[in-house]
Amino acid sequence: MKINVKECAAILQQQDNILILTHDHPDGDTLGCGFALCRALHALGKRARVINADEIPHKYGYLYNDIAAEDFQEQFIVAVDVATENLLGDLQNTYGGKINLCIDHHGTNTLYAENTLLEEVPAACETVLKLIKELGVQIDVGIANCLYTGITTDTGCFRYASVTADTFRAAAELVELGADNGKINRAMFETKTKTYARLEKLAIEGMRYYCNDRVAVIIVTQDMYAQTGSNETETEGLPPLTRQVEGVEIGLTIREKQDKTCKVSIRTFESVNAAELAKMFGGGGHPQAAACRVEAEVAEATKQLIEKCAVLLGD
Amino acid sequence: MKINVKECAAILQQQDNILILTHDHPDGDTLGCGFALCRALHALGKRARVINADEIPHKYGYLYNDIAAEDFQEQFIVAVDVATENLLGDLQNTYGGKINLCIDHHGTNTLYAENTLLEEVPAACETVLKLIKELGVQIDVGIANCLYTGITTDTGCFRYASVTADTFRAAAELVELGADNGKINRAMFETKTKTYARLEKLAIEGMRYYCNDRVAVIIVTQDMYAQTGSNETETEGLPPLTRQVEGVEIGLTIREKQDKTCKVSIRTFESVNAAELAKMFGGGGHPQAAACRVEAEVAEATKQLIEKCAVLLGD
Repeated sequence: MKINVKECAAILQQQDNILILTHDHPDGDTLGCGFALCRALHALGKRARVINADEIPHKYGYLYNDIAAEDFQEQFIVAVDVATENLLGDLQNTYGGKINLCIDHHGTNTLYAENTLLEEVPAACETVLKLIKELGVQIDVGIANCLYTGITTDTGCFRYASVTADTFRAAAELVELGADNGKINRAMFETKTKTYARLEKLAIEGMRYYCNDRVAVIIVTQDMYAQTGSNETETEGLPPLTRQVEGVEIGLTIREKQDKTCKVSIRTFESVNAAELAKMFGGGGHPQAAACRVEAEVAEATKQLIEKCAVLLGD
Repeated sequence: MKINVKECAAILQQQDNILILTHDHPDGDTLGCGFALCRALHALGKRARVINADEIPHKYGYLYNDIAAEDFQEQFIVAVDVATENLLGDLQNTYGGKINLCIDHHGTNTLYAENTLLEEVPAACETVLKLIKELGVQIDVGIANCLYTGITTDTGCFRYASVTADTFRAAAELVELGADNGKINRAMFETKTKTYARLEKLAIEGMRYYCNDRVAVIIVTQDMYAQTGSNETETEGLPPLTRQVEGVEIGLTIREKQDKTCKVSIRTFESVNAAELAKMFGGGGHPQAAACRVEAEVAEATKQLIEKCAVLLGD
């Protein structure tokens, strides 16, 4: 069932021993939502913890380093920023079909949870900010940093067309509450590790174009991780690069996973709906940024994706 | 004399035939201020126009394409976002010592104008927004686009540590008034012309490090423009690149001008004051972003700059 912020707050008030799940390959928005909500629930005297299917990139350490570990038998399960159950990754085996509450901002959400708080805002953290206020929790610097992180990362630092006046107002509020916007943006957008810099160089050199240069593809293989000392947690910076070349309408970043199947990030401009393409492969997302998995090896996955791109572009 | 927003509005109300000057190598903030103010003065029934020492980069066309040309004998001269008179470039010969009003946000402003409205906010457009409201002008989409452009470009799209809650509130207001934030950000930050892409590649390949890799230097020569089909108006994207490498504290972008002297952009992190370095060469700016000219050829200018960097870094 779809619920609003008020109803969501009322439900959470009645629960305890709350397990919060983020999506796989966690990014700033899912982690920001998860740890902000976890902190707010702790402030209400409840027990809560956040778990992920994949390793959390090192740069997000400040979101949770000061949260004490809690061990308890979960009684209530919340998924944040998770559009479909298969985006839970390896957690799907354990928690699929058991999600009590989902807080999300993807129009493609499949309403798999018992209750869903869905607002199509640029970052799910915008909704979690409203929720935490509705819960009556005083927002401290820790919560403000989590929520600011989600908003800035999911909007490309306020760059995307999806950003509204409300997004800016949420950011104003969070900065006033102590969010360290300069430091967070530097960590998120301006700092390249040397291993990532090497990976990025390889990725750009290997960029391929299809459909009369209207599609740009970056492929990241396990070999490239080995060669550069990098790993999957360092690939967030690649998808935006696929959109930067004049004339490109669809940018694909195809990451080879250890099991040889692929995880794909899709970026588009207004002319193409990224979520529509993702949906063809069981994924989801936003009109200009979406993701999916393709259960095939890189070459085959690329072929399948390009075929669908050609259809979408009317080629 | 320093004046406040109210006093500034009162002065402008009494004037007509107003000439607005921007700084040389005009960027989004100086142009946004200039054309927003010009539009506001037109709305008040006054005659006003904006002039620049250098060519306006093509991508800023939307700021003024719909403003009708006005020819008149100027009676009142305003400089916007111009910290020192020598930043007027070639306009200094004609207008030096004759500026009636300066609206600026640089702490290094030398108070060269008869009256100066100086607020140390991240973008001068933030102050011009307040001024236009004080003038009683209804802000239309044209003005909103100008002011949003100044704010987003001078804050690196809200990325810099200088951004405050007020900056976000100004952005919220402008988006509500119709500023096309998505389109503007795409034009400012996401679109690389092919000539710029070539220039950027050359510039990055030629990046040099000094002072134990704590200083990164990009040099752009007239030869490089010729080689890439690019020109000075396309170099705005380079200075941020100098800061992106791990460990770099000062990033210098040294542009060779046609007369073989140099125009230098300085970017730093908190550990070094960029404006202080700029001041040593008669320039000015902000703590983390500043600019100056060096009246020497590239090799000599680089040597002089690195010497000062070494002093600032305590090397």
